[in-house]
Amino acid sequence: MNELELIAKLTKSLPANPNVMTGVGDDCAVLDLGLPEKLILFKTDAAVEDIHFTPETPPEKIGRKALARCLSDIAAMAGTPVAALVTLGLPEKFDPEFVGKIYDGLNVLAEKFGVAIVGGETTTNPGRIFISIALLGTVARGKQVLRSGAKAGDAIFVTGELGGSLAGKHLEFEPRLEEARWLADHFSIHAMIDLSDGLAGDLPHILKASGGGAELLKSAVPISRAAKLRARKSPTAKPAIAAALTDGEDFELLFTVAGADAVKLLDAWKKIFPKLKLSCIGKIVAGGGILICDKAGSHKLNAHGYIHFA
Amino acid sequence: MNELELIAKLTKSLPANPNVMTGVGDDCAVLDLGLPEKLILFKTDAAVEDIHFTPETPPEKIGRKALARCLSDIAAMAGTPVAALVTLGLPEKFDPEFVGKIYDGLNVLAEKFGVAIVGGETTTNPGRIFISIALLGTVARGKQVLRSGAKAGDAIFVTGELGGSLAGKHLEFEPRLEEARWLADHFSIHAMIDLSDGLAGDLPHILKASGGGAELLKSAVPISRAAKLRARKSPTAKPAIAAALTDGEDFELLFTVAGADAVKLLDAWKKIFPKLKLSCIGKIVAGGGILICDKAGSHKLNAHGYIHFA
Repeated sequence: MNELELIAKLTKSLPANPNVMTGVGDDCAVLDLGLPEKLILFKTDAAVEDIHFTPETPPEKIGRKALARCLSDIAAMAGTPVAALVTLGLPEKFDPEFVGKIYDGLNVLAEKFGVAIVGGETTTNPGRIFISIALLGTVARGKQVLRSGAKAGDAIFVTGELGGSLAGKHLEFEPRLEEARWLADHFSIHAMIDLSDGLAGDLPHILKASGGGAELLKSAVPISRAAKLRARKSPTAKPAIAAALTDGEDFELLFTVAGADAVKLLDAWKKIFPKLKLSCIGKIVAGGGILICDKAGSHKLNAHGYIHFA
Repeated sequence: MNELELIAKLTKSLPANPNVMTGVGDDCAVLDLGLPEKLILFKTDAAVEDIHFTPETPPEKIGRKALARCLSDIAAMAGTPVAALVTLGLPEKFDPEFVGKIYDGLNVLAEKFGVAIVGGETTTNPGRIFISIALLGTVARGKQVLRSGAKAGDAIFVTGELGGSLAGKHLEFEPRLEEARWLADHFSIHAMIDLSDGLAGDLPHILKASGGGAELLKSAVPISRAAKLRARKSPTAKPAIAAALTDGEDFELLFTVAGADAVKLLDAWKKIFPKLKLSCIGKIVAGGGILICDKAGSHKLNAHGYIHFA
């Protein structure tokens, strides 16, 4: 049983209450606590040694990544982060300086995005270091973007460039908070997710939640320099396009808007975010699955983003 | 460096923002998100194998305890829990049935207290099973009870009976949510905490936050049957009164009210909660430290609740 099968089993019938607008199955839970203009976003995410970082990762970058991963989930709802709690699992003999640096990296990112660190705890964990972050945020009522709103005919967009994140980006990526809020403020964004398991792994989440399939234009998929370099240097590496489709940890936004909005959105984006690439990579279609098209024709994309138990 | 020293170091200068009413250092963080009648409570707590449960603990009780610990923190603020996220660290080869039973125990308690389980994640953790719960709650604006409001002359109360929790209660305790809300609704509760590290370990948190010391009446400290039994059966066990003062995991409420309210409170309590003992165990005094008094005189209570790095 892998992670997805386990989650499916565990989440079949969870306790609910009238405050829950969106529970399990989106980037964040969405709660209605009666705020007239806002909904509450709620999310936890763990960064674990040997999965999300290595024993060689500088501690500042461990702390930074742990928080950035959660911020990216808030971004995927078009929300604003407010406050975080930090749970740190440490070996029994830990180096206080190392731990201090984990917090340094985390705090710098928290300050940047106005997130208060309001508590947490440390616990012993002999196996490996882990950091679990619980994050609370808000989103303007009605502006929350779920995975479930994509419609046939929607244009599919992705920010930035994809693939090869493990070469460094996964420790330094910028959560797309400002960009996501701008999108939700200025356009009717039908569905959105942040890319953590690769385009081929995460687009199916939108398709499953929304119903429908997707047709991607191979030449439109933005491939990162890191993925291209790796493909060129190592004969055993994935082709760059495969890396862009299936590597994890991109933490870019994947979203859909009505096809009629696509050009207007691209034009407006270029003026507001001239340094961040935005690519229209295909469209939502009736039916299921993902087709990827190039000059030679179209074939099914069955390269799953890596299904990891983590 | 132990847990408390590490926390002191890490929490010296954490990022804050105007939403934070109470950050690190109370049972929950308190946030003001603009709800006219409510404040938000935010808390995480981890239950870890070999610290909070053993490999022999039935999985339902592991799940139950993990959530109950967090609920007890919400109770200590006089709050109401709303929604929880569950992070589960599991060995690579886990038994799905075992994990299902962890959730069963957790879900039963969640249903009982109206808590929605709105997501979470699983992650591999080779060393030991851990469950970290992030809990979001609310409290009526102005009714939140902090650790910092105790005043000289206050009467000190404790619910239930203390000590010997590891004999079984730690897996089955009832979070005192209803009792705490009733207290805050009907009396001016000056300070409150839930007992997780023992009376002698947790009362100092109130004293430190409020300023002042305490005088306890030894004969008034309610000792559990389990602590008495253990003391009687084993010559190497702590005396029962020492167990009541220093054993951890009681998860009872410790609170203070103005001395003038003490008798009225005891009378009202007996009518509303006839099955749950409430004991007035002493008073808050000027100056620091804890004195414990019996017929033979008074002496300083230096038996700390166990300072654990967990």
